[in-house]
Amino acid sequence: MGLVVQKYGGSSVADAEGIKRVAKRIVEAKKNGNQVVVVVSAMGDTTDELIDLAEQVSPMPAGREFDMLLTAGERISMALLAMAIKNLGHEAQSFTGSQAGVITDSVHNKARIIDVTPGRIRTALDEGNIAIVAGFQGVSADKKDITTLGRGGSDTTAVALAAALDAEVCEIYTDVDGVFTADPRVVKKARKIDWISFEDMLELAASGSKVLLHRCVEYARRYNIPIHVRSSFSGLQGTWVSSKPIGDKKVEQAIISGVAHDTSEAKVTVVGVPDKPGEAAAIFRTIADAEINIDMVVQNVSAAATGLTDISFTLPKTEGRKAIDALERNRSGIGFDSLRYDDQIGKISLVGAGMKTNPGVTASFFEALSDAGVNIELISTSEIRISVVTRADDVPEAVRAVHTAFGLDSDTDEAVVYGGTGR
Amino acid sequence: MGLVVQKYGGSSVADAEGIKRVAKRIVEAKKNGNQVVVVVSAMGDTTDELIDLAEQVSPMPAGREFDMLLTAGERISMALLAMAIKNLGHEAQSFTGSQAGVITDSVHNKARIIDVTPGRIRTALDEGNIAIVAGFQGVSADKKDITTLGRGGSDTTAVALAAALDAEVCEIYTDVDGVFTADPRVVKKARKIDWISFEDMLELAASGSKVLLHRCVEYARRYNIPIHVRSSFSGLQGTWVSSKPIGDKKVEQAIISGVAHDTSEAKVTVVGVPDKPGEAAAIFRTIADAEINIDMVVQNVSAAATGLTDISFTLPKTEGRKAIDALERNRSGIGFDSLRYDDQIGKISLVGAGMKTNPGVTASFFEALSDAGVNIELISTSEIRISVVTRADDVPEAVRAVHTAFGLDSDTDEAVVYGGTGR
Repeated sequence: MGLVVQKYGGSSVADAEGIKRVAKRIVEAKKNGNQVVVVVSAMGDTTDELIDLAEQVSPMPAGREFDMLLTAGERISMALLAMAIKNLGHEAQSFTGSQAGVITDSVHNKARIIDVTPGRIRTALDEGNIAIVAGFQGVSADKKDITTLGRGGSDTTAVALAAALDAEVCEIYTDVDGVFTADPRVVKKARKIDWISFEDMLELAASGSKVLLHRCVEYARRYNIPIHVRSSFSGLQGTWVSSKPIGDKKVEQAIISGVAHDTSEAKVTVVGVPDKPGEAAAIFRTIADAEINIDMVVQNVSAAATGLTDISFTLPKTEGRKAIDALERNRSGIGFDSLRYDDQIGKISLVGAGMKTNPGVTASFFEALSDAGVNIELISTSEIRISVVTRADDVPEAVRAVHTAFGLDSDTDEAVVYGGTGR
Repeated sequence: MGLVVQKYGGSSVADAEGIKRVAKRIVEAKKNGNQVVVVVSAMGDTTDELIDLAEQVSPMPAGREFDMLLTAGERISMALLAMAIKNLGHEAQSFTGSQAGVITDSVHNKARIIDVTPGRIRTALDEGNIAIVAGFQGVSADKKDITTLGRGGSDTTAVALAAALDAEVCEIYTDVDGVFTADPRVVKKARKIDWISFEDMLELAASGSKVLLHRCVEYARRYNIPIHVRSSFSGLQGTWVSSKPIGDKKVEQAIISGVAHDTSEAKVTVVGVPDKPGEAAAIFRTIADAEINIDMVVQNVSAAATGLTDISFTLPKTEGRKAIDALERNRSGIGFDSLRYDDQIGKISLVGAGMKTNPGVTASFFEALSDAGVNIELISTSEIRISVVTRADDVPEAVRAVHTAFGLDSDTDEAVVYGGTGR
């Protein structure tokens, strides 16, 4: 084999025992003849504890200092992990994001990687070391300040390093066995997916699947780095995410990859909007100016008699208050009757590249929901995804119904899903 | 005023409240028209907790990784302190040892500073910022690895930065009001010293006074940086340590600066050593090869009849086992009858440049001890210090007796010693 990048999340290195367990797994990979680069997150709840401290000293912690604070977490875990590996008789060196050559822009707390120059990592590997790298952090190109990459940043660090080092694979170790056809907590018969294309994984991530973040998959697709999502507890084969099935695996692209759901969004309906050009633009310019990302947008057919229409959109619940305030402030500029806000919604999405060439997928999807007595409130589609909004309470039943209707249920009664703590 | 370097220890920034209190004090110094550089230690017991973690994953943590781990502590405190200052409406930027230009050798866990290139600090100051610097850490000149400076390292960081930035003063904030004529926990009537010379302070530090470490004073003397040791709780004037009294202060050099004591040492006596050239050398080469630092050495007068003599020396109790083992292993090479080990000793030292020109100091010292009924076991002197070894139990009484005999007692019944927690 060749060069492998492994990433371990906070739950895998939550305490000294976890660190020692992970160290053994890393040494195994090394013994199998690989050069090994490990990206590690902060231990367990360290990051949350640091955020708490910051809020105690300042209600609005400054970006640069906040990043300096948070990066202490990975510094601790990576040093401990290197010690644990050395204690097993293998050479290891730890590197901060800056030392590893992770160069970012200057947007503190959610910096984007703009270059990776892993010269020190390459040297460490050539000298026979296992290289441990702090995830989630980098150094800004212009000011040489410490930055953090935002939520899920360690996965992105791993993929970016894998790309820069031309690794054979980027292994993302987590506390579940891989990517499933649906959330196993909702669908007992969910199956682990052996292989999934970048495109389908991107749609699943955008639709609420939490195993991999959209940004990380996007990066991997751009540089064509195969990702292997697997459990740090079980050691089983997990899910491969790549452009084509790896090696001699003959895996046919499934028509449907999986069913994702998301209950973290709310719906805003702008009622009584004049049905004329520029109205939608006025609404979404207002929302964009408030720096709110929205998801689905639906405009109902105008009632001919009144010349008024309704426009609905979904957005994270956490942004709801901000959106309503922004729209109210600009009520006269936009021109609408009233606003409705609904945070009791859920979204169910069916994802699969196969649906492009398989007529009837949409019809079967709606039939399954109808048979389950689930009412549809909004619909939105892409080439390889259909999403609907329903009542939040209906989501579990809807997901199970769709999962069964598309033949995704496993044959066994209940899949072993969690290899470890089940956290 | 000009440029001030302030150093705050772990007990001053033990929690969010402490950090906010320190931030206010720093902002005051800034408001008084100073450029302010702050060196900060890790919060409270952070460093000890990190050491615990390291010992859980590896019995012998490696130097490089151990340093990487420990430096996370200052990273947390400095970022929080910068946030707290910004929250008071002043600009602050935090810098790691590496960013601050603290260049060291490569001896992990006890690196020595070999250069300070504070370009980024200077820029931050010129832009109107308060600069916060992580104490205790640097970056190695050759390998660009993170290093730590060992015990008391943050004081040394502060003095080194003060020297490199040509600061007017290096203020060491601690949890006592300054340097006292004796340990106030032992001598209730100990007085705070307003000014003390570098030389006397070096002798006090070497003799057991714990307020400032020897290494930090040595550095300050070399670059002639005045140190002001004071409480972060009370805000009172503390003790100035410098070559000459500062400004228009007319402080005369005291004959005696103070009485120090130390009960952390043990005594080894090598019994029945042939009284011939090379014997002492053989003993102390053995000790040096075991990398043990010793303190006092005394050779008794040889008993003419036997041609044998005894050689005693003191060393830290923590090194006792190692010293005995080393001597035993080399018994035939050295040639001695037996070894005696005694860890129930204490050392009392009288320090003061004035004793050089004041005959009778030594006599008064011994008389005071004799009047208190304290038996002397070893004696060692330098130009400005006399030290004796006694029973450990006798130390408090001996210190009080000497303190009174040399007129060091304060007039008030009991000095207010601790400005704050009294930790």
